[in-house]
Amino acid sequence: MTDRISIGVLGASGYTGADLVRLLAAHPKADIRVLTANAHAGKPMSAVYPHLGGLALPALKRVEETDWSGLDVVFCGLPHGTSQEVIAGLPEEMKVIDLSADFRLRDPAVYAQWYGHEHRALALQEEAVYGLSEHYREAIRGARLVACPGCYPTAALLLLLPLLQAGLIEAEDIIIDAKSGVSGGGRALKEAMLFCEVAEAIQPYAVASHRHAPEIEQELSIAAGKELLINFTPHLVPMNRGELLTCYVRLRGAANATELCEALEERYGEEPFVRVLPKGAAPATRHVRGSNFCLLGAFDDRLPGRAILISTLDNLVKGSSGQAIQNMNIMFGLPETLGLEQQPLFP
Amino acid sequence: MTDRISIGVLGASGYTGADLVRLLAAHPKADIRVLTANAHAGKPMSAVYPHLGGLALPALKRVEETDWSGLDVVFCGLPHGTSQEVIAGLPEEMKVIDLSADFRLRDPAVYAQWYGHEHRALALQEEAVYGLSEHYREAIRGARLVACPGCYPTAALLLLLPLLQAGLIEAEDIIIDAKSGVSGGGRALKEAMLFCEVAEAIQPYAVASHRHAPEIEQELSIAAGKELLINFTPHLVPMNRGELLTCYVRLRGAANATELCEALEERYGEEPFVRVLPKGAAPATRHVRGSNFCLLGAFDDRLPGRAILISTLDNLVKGSSGQAIQNMNIMFGLPETLGLEQQPLFP
Amino acid sequence: MTDRISIGVLGASGYTGADLVRLLAAHPKADIRVLTANAHAGKPMSAVYPHLGGLALPALKRVEETDWSGLDVVFCGLPHGTSQEVIAGLPEEMKVIDLSADFRLRDPAVYAQWYGHEHRALALQEEAVYGLSEHYREAIRGARLVACPGCYPTAALLLLLPLLQAGLIEAEDIIIDAKSGVSGGGRALKEAMLFCEVAEAIQPYAVASHRHAPEIEQELSIAAGKELLINFTPHLVPMNRGELLTCYVRLRGAANATELCEALEERYGEEPFVRVLPKGAAPATRHVRGSNFCLLGAFDDRLPGRAILISTLDNLVKGSSGQAIQNMNIMFGLPETLGLEQQPLFP
Amino acid sequence: MTDRISIGVLGASGYTGADLVRLLAAHPKADIRVLTANAHAGKPMSAVYPHLGGLALPALKRVEETDWSGLDVVFCGLPHGTSQEVIAGLPEEMKVIDLSADFRLRDPAVYAQWYGHEHRALALQEEAVYGLSEHYREAIRGARLVACPGCYPTAALLLLLPLLQAGLIEAEDIIIDAKSGVSGGGRALKEAMLFCEVAEAIQPYAVASHRHAPEIEQELSIAAGKELLINFTPHLVPMNRGELLTCYVRLRGAANATELCEALEERYGEEPFVRVLPKGAAPATRHVRGSNFCLLGAFDDRLPGRAILISTLDNLVKGSSGQAIQNMNIMFGLPETLGLEQQPLFP
Repeated sequence: MTDRISIGVLGASGYTGADLVRLLAAHPKADIRVLTANAHAGKPMSAVYPHLGGLALPALKRVEETDWSGLDVVFCGLPHGTSQEVIAGLPEEMKVIDLSADFRLRDPAVYAQWYGHEHRALALQEEAVYGLSEHYREAIRGARLVACPGCYPTAALLLLLPLLQAGLIEAEDIIIDAKSGVSGGGRALKEAMLFCEVAEAIQPYAVASHRHAPEIEQELSIAAGKELLINFTPHLVPMNRGELLTCYVRLRGAANATELCEALEERYGEEPFVRVLPKGAAPATRHVRGSNFCLLGAFDDRLPGRAILISTLDNLVKGSSGQAIQNMNIMFGLPETLGLEQQPLFP
Repeated sequence: MTDRISIGVLGASGYTGADLVRLLAAHPKADIRVLTANAHAGKPMSAVYPHLGGLALPALKRVEETDWSGLDVVFCGLPHGTSQEVIAGLPEEMKVIDLSADFRLRDPAVYAQWYGHEHRALALQEEAVYGLSEHYREAIRGARLVACPGCYPTAALLLLLPLLQAGLIEAEDIIIDAKSGVSGGGRALKEAMLFCEVAEAIQPYAVASHRHAPEIEQELSIAAGKELLINFTPHLVPMNRGELLTCYVRLRGAANATELCEALEERYGEEPFVRVLPKGAAPATRHVRGSNFCLLGAFDDRLPGRAILISTLDNLVKGSSGQAIQNMNIMFGLPETLGLEQQPLFP
Repeated sequence: MTDRISIGVLGASGYTGADLVRLLAAHPKADIRVLTANAHAGKPMSAVYPHLGGLALPALKRVEETDWSGLDVVFCGLPHGTSQEVIAGLPEEMKVIDLSADFRLRDPAVYAQWYGHEHRALALQEEAVYGLSEHYREAIRGARLVACPGCYPTAALLLLLPLLQAGLIEAEDIIIDAKSGVSGGGRALKEAMLFCEVAEAIQPYAVASHRHAPEIEQELSIAAGKELLINFTPHLVPMNRGELLTCYVRLRGAANATELCEALEERYGEEPFVRVLPKGAAPATRHVRGSNFCLLGAFDDRLPGRAILISTLDNLVKGSSGQAIQNMNIMFGLPETLGLEQQPLFP
Repeated sequence: MTDRISIGVLGASGYTGADLVRLLAAHPKADIRVLTANAHAGKPMSAVYPHLGGLALPALKRVEETDWSGLDVVFCGLPHGTSQEVIAGLPEEMKVIDLSADFRLRDPAVYAQWYGHEHRALALQEEAVYGLSEHYREAIRGARLVACPGCYPTAALLLLLPLLQAGLIEAEDIIIDAKSGVSGGGRALKEAMLFCEVAEAIQPYAVASHRHAPEIEQELSIAAGKELLINFTPHLVPMNRGELLTCYVRLRGAANATELCEALEERYGEEPFVRVLPKGAAPATRHVRGSNFCLLGAFDDRLPGRAILISTLDNLVKGSSGQAIQNMNIMFGLPETLGLEQQPLFP
């Protein structure tokens, strides 16, 4: 076991933490040494997540009581605000893969505006690398602190970045109609997440005010070479996992959906986790459930000069834990797909 | 019972037929005299729909064997193409409320293009009144043949018509991202409608090619005073009933979401079935389930000069059977809400 | 409106309260005058239940601030324990229909054992009539305080009481495998009720320890003429509404499922809300959704001398609010079906 | 690749076939060389199952056109009746793992009674080994033809066999109330499997007439040392995967649930895929979703002398494809868990 990576998972009692454990259990180089969950300290992980009862895992402990010695890397699934404080106190030689929102936004003023308080670990924020694996691979390789993107931004950016970079779509008036399964809201006790409030229903939420909007805008602005705003309208769908983004864009020049597919295929042809469907084929969340895949598709619009683009992924995997492990593989020089080869679960 | 309306339901074995029967059973002036369903002729309705087993209903028969005498009105839930042929053969003094697509499109060329064959009852088509109750009430009152709108067009038009008419939104680049429950696809045996194909998943379908697009365009064009095209992108949601449309529009002049809400409220303030929510409140399908209500809402967009509009209804009620009964009430001079006062079923 | 019944609903913010309001809104003799919900006092009902936004309703208030004058009857949907205290303080001339568990158990010792505290309104408990409409109709007619049965007991007793009374089944070893939708757990914030914990899963809960067991045993014991125990094993099903009980019983003498059906049909043939299916036809929750119906069915078993019995109802209607209104109709001398004629909602 | 097992999957277009492919793709010794699906011959597997689009797989072909040379083993997922004919025509040196019902029943008369026709490959039937891995491991090791148990029998037998063998429960009046997800019904086009017929509902089906009953009886009779009948009552649950059996048994002598747990733990303590929960802990389908685990639990009953037993597994994995692969591992002398280590997917 000496060649294994010693791993800690902070905030292991969330759905993201559970999915990290599920995936790391199948990773031949991973050795989970620490699991923290303050509200459940002292319990075995199987008391919180019985589906993981078949694994030998360390008991949950409080983050304050954790012995960091010997850990190579921690995944941090703590709430925003808390994450920056805990990470600031970690040993400097330990790598950190953060799944919270704390280090995603490059501009502290934007962070403060959207999260309601000043950032409390600015040096770390400056150092952090944005962990969109397919687009920041080189920087991730050398990083100590990786800020994994939000689930929606991952789906949006994998779809739109290459098209903006290639100058195929306009930067103005990008409209993202997003649909997400309920696990995106976490395991917290909120009335809106009760079964009876969600089942047999669909609804928009956080319209024009979702915190993933500035994150998407930040990265798209870099690609476009200028500041841009987007429309980002999420909806809650009665399903556990999965996320589907339908994007409405204006084409530049004479571009059409065929060219968009080609550009995406050219960009991602060698990527193991991003698959571009032929023009007119519709991605669906059930095609990626439980896997680290992201599927992209493009359609011609009835409106002249426009196209419809679709992106789908599993919010807990490619949108969170899976991409985090992919980043770990990059940071430790391992094959990028290690432990992430699981095919989607359907039906 | 002499003051009751004698009613026939053609194609009673579809979900729309079943919901017509459910609602008419609670209508104090309705008397169901004929139910047809060729594939189930001879069976009681309760053999096809056990949930209706508590009602005394006529047995199902073949449409060819139906005795039309004494019927005041028929609801026609037959497939498109068949509907026009059957309706053409009905007694002239009988009123007809058609729930198929056969008489919705005013231009026979558009019909032929989208439905794959020439229209076979052109005189009737010319006579037919488009049954969007709140917008064609007067014409419906005097009509013999009412063509009830599709479910998506009902939701789209109730939302957009007043705003276009008031000149508050641009007619260009109207984008409608639609989400529908599975009953919209009917009870036909299609692999895509199997539980395992739909549950725990969301997907787009018929992208840029759905037959409700030209119907929406037809009515919006009239309101705008010029030909327009729309983006219409439907998605299949794992729920039985309900439909939610998220519309992305450009504002004219200095209009904003507040004014859109006001315009809608002004238009629908007296309407019993259309409710306009305060700006920023999100309609959800669970707020209308099983009822004849349509809820409308508006939001300011992050993109300057744009707004986000939401419309929701139950596709089988206001989107189909409920609106059909509402039209029957209009045609027979009854209070428009008769038999349609049911509150939504939640949870 | 002078001939209307003036009604108060205490604890209107639960799912039961909401369904009471939904149903009472369609009741021609009901006039809702008071709605209480301490945690939401001051809000309109539509803020708590937007699907009721189309109704003119009194604002929610604290129960302590309620003016009882002029009320003919209150429905009490408060938690157990609280109910008995609140009801004890109500004006004596007001009728009370209690939906809590407080007055269901006739033996105070059994109440104390299962609910963890001594009963605090013993005189009321003695006076209370058990509100199983079809079996205690006469007593309900003259009652001031009616204790509506639990949802599971309603389904179990409607099925088993006539068979025990007729001596067709043995009183020993009655096994009730129960399946319930999630609304049975109420709107409280519990992790086990989160969408992601329930969807795509089934599980038993409260095995051999559910509080509805002693209630079922109490009534079955009366019918059997001797004390009996039952097996009662509930399961949580990923659906909003509905309850299905599969009962495994031993037959007495040469009885078989055909005779059981006949006995049930004889008992309930004139009842408007209880329907007995032909032998071998399977009741399903979707056949009663949203309605006040209870469906009963019987099957021969492969095991000689045994039968399989099924009962299904909507836990929020016949299992709670609907039966409560049915009792109100009885108490006020109204036709028993008034306001309860809604057909099931399917799909 | 020379040390890999060359594999054919017959009937690859069913859900079982798809799950075989999903799991074999992660199996380090598996090499899928042939996929048949007569109705889809010529198509790529990804056209039938887009979620498998990331795999390099042979195209689907007709079983009649298959070249068997070089195949070490075939998994047969064809319909019953067809399976026995196709398998009878396979090369004798090839191992066969049958997932159909054709070779499960040892008595041809019982087969004929339940499947409606004489068995057409009696010699093979005699040779076939019943593939309940944990109970027939030695026979499976030397078998050429393994008949994998049905999903329900797997769950029932893993739970009940050790208890009958240990003389802890009575053989009489064993009652199995079973609940299954919809994938158990396959991908065939049946109205009862449409989303709208299943969602928001639970219902019994095939009451006292399900074909898995004689299979369970066959194996329990061997364990009991005498012929026995069981009650087996399946129900359809609105979820994709998973199966939960609630068994009601009479205890022998002074046995109680604690002893049952101990006996199960003793029997399965070393088994990698069967986990016995502490007395009173409730197995749930969400704890096994997508994995090869089977969870067992026991509860004391309120009825003296009885116990409640629970078994849960994923019908497509341990109930079908997973157990088939487990059997392949046994037949080829591989570690039994190879390719089956995936943890459950939750939520």
